[in-house]
Amino acid sequence: MLRFAFLLCVVLLAAPAALAQPADPVVLVVHGGAGTISRANVTPETEAALRAALDTALRAGHAALEEGRPALDAVVASIEVLEDDPHFNAGRGGVFAADGSVRHDASIMDGSTGLAGASAGTMHVRHPIQLARAVMEHSPHVLLTAEGAEEFAMQQGLELAPNTFFHTERRRRSLDAVQQREREQSGDLGSEPADWQMHGTVGAVALDQSGHLAAGTSTGGMTNKRWGRVGDSPIIGAGTYADDATCGVSATGHGEYFIRLGIARDIAARAAYLGESCVDASEVVIHETLTNAGGTGGVIVLDAQGRVAMPFNTEGMYRGHITRSGAVTIAFYGDE
Amino acid sequence: MLRFAFLLCVVLLAAPAALAQPADPVVLVVHGGAGTISRANVTPETEAALRAALDTALRAGHAALEEGRPALDAVVASIEVLEDDPHFNAGRGGVFAADGSVRHDASIMDGSTGLAGASAGTMHVRHPIQLARAVMEHSPHVLLTAEGAEEFAMQQGLELAPNTFFHTERRRRSLDAVQQREREQSGDLGSEPADWQMHGTVGAVALDQSGHLAAGTSTGGMTNKRWGRVGDSPIIGAGTYADDATCGVSATGHGEYFIRLGIARDIAARAAYLGESCVDASEVVIHETLTNAGGTGGVIVLDAQGRVAMPFNTEGMYRGHITRSGAVTIAFYGDE
Repeated sequence: MLRFAFLLCVVLLAAPAALAQPADPVVLVVHGGAGTISRANVTPETEAALRAALDTALRAGHAALEEGRPALDAVVASIEVLEDDPHFNAGRGGVFAADGSVRHDASIMDGSTGLAGASAGTMHVRHPIQLARAVMEHSPHVLLTAEGAEEFAMQQGLELAPNTFFHTERRRRSLDAVQQREREQSGDLGSEPADWQMHGTVGAVALDQSGHLAAGTSTGGMTNKRWGRVGDSPIIGAGTYADDATCGVSATGHGEYFIRLGIARDIAARAAYLGESCVDASEVVIHETLTNAGGTGGVIVLDAQGRVAMPFNTEGMYRGHITRSGAVTIAFYGDE
Repeated sequence: MLRFAFLLCVVLLAAPAALAQPADPVVLVVHGGAGTISRANVTPETEAALRAALDTALRAGHAALEEGRPALDAVVASIEVLEDDPHFNAGRGGVFAADGSVRHDASIMDGSTGLAGASAGTMHVRHPIQLARAVMEHSPHVLLTAEGAEEFAMQQGLELAPNTFFHTERRRRSLDAVQQREREQSGDLGSEPADWQMHGTVGAVALDQSGHLAAGTSTGGMTNKRWGRVGDSPIIGAGTYADDATCGVSATGHGEYFIRLGIARDIAARAAYLGESCVDASEVVIHETLTNAGGTGGVIVLDAQGRVAMPFNTEGMYRGHITRSGAVTIAFYGDE
């Protein structure tokens, strides 16, 4: 009986803190990939450019929310900025597949309706996040792939670009380096990719004035990917998930682990079934579930009360959020 | 205090039933699709052929288990039988896409390791379930797609077949009927497909002598699919999931709902986080979560104690299971 009373007290004391709504809630959170991000390997110029890009992305989404537009609009507005910036592995800065092409994957989910859209393996859609949204809103499907997805994009009048539009010298050098190493080694195409090949991807989670959540993710995938490999970014429940009643989540990391573990959905499931906050659930899923499985990466998480979390188990993750009043926070490293 | 004692009694009384291991546990369960399956629209000849095919599939998997082979082997053995049988929407009997091709999706998951493999949109792999397993075992990836997946299949020495090998007259008539209706109607390509277009898919869940689970799913997808549409069958957590600690699941139905709701994973999550049995969790997820969302279909579920469930919210589902001693049960209709 004593123990019961003690537990009751713990619950009663913890509840107000867990349920408190922030005075100035976070309304938008973005990421630009996780990985070996330390002060030693980011030049001041690159750091400034990356911070500026995340700031621009956050303010673009915030502007949409300020106008009273839905969370989906904010997610798309933010991700478009990052897709257009060659610093990130999405849109223009997408990494090269083994055959020298850039192939994009993206997904989006509406937390108020449970609807979702995604595309995988497109080569000519300028803003893959727009395609994901069009799949959700203008097709009866969730996931379209490759040439078929591009045909749909054309029917929807989305902006196209030649694949060369997405090519950058920096990503070309990365591909060359991987393929050089591959030639020097066994030539075993089935070996585990280096961790850095797997990281990169952009994402956003937004909370609109009506209290609805949306989440989206966009990526060029993995450097030197072959065999039509698709990671977690276009997989609802793995790379992206949103449900007003639980959490909005966008992930970045070693996609195979995120698919097998259903990372985004698992965070929401813990919130739904264990009653954990999204903040606590995401910490457990990244620092215990993902880490114990040997996977690396991170997530951004937002709930309908504007509470945010950005856990990762890599050295760093490009990340930031903006509050309703417009206060921006941006961080890269593990000690920030 | 009285209420507490009452709850305690309920728990103590319910526990033995919930935890009881069947004397002759089910070691393998298969499905051949869900949908408008009623005695009125299945001829005695077709019914006999379908029952024989499920029986053969069950005995093929059972034989593997009897030899002490892993659950993965049983899943593949069972699904191969169904892929070879033109009655089912998988392998040879796969439905036609809008362009007149047959395109396969498949996935498999090992409940003992959490590893998984899948392929989407292949046109020339005779047994897509073998490809899914090869992706899991011989690539560092989970999901391969289209031509890339076929290149991998060839590198792995898997059996290939021209696309015409998979063509059947019956499926051709189905495609013709859908396209005729489409021409007569608005010609709106974005309209919701008829329910029957979405049903079909085969799957298996097995429990081996070491107590490990595996689950697999294989399909031709949706009749008249376009834009590279991919459903839930190759999506880990949607169409397929296996975890020794919770449940093995294979799904069939309107794939878009299964992806958005993460049906297979949700059953396992309820088992893990709410402590529900796989049987109870699957009943709730099909008859409440899926049904309330407006989706149709079903799942087969097996846990490591050999307890089975096969819930569906359609008129019928081709399904069957076999116990360790070799007792086969096959059923089609809702009243069986």
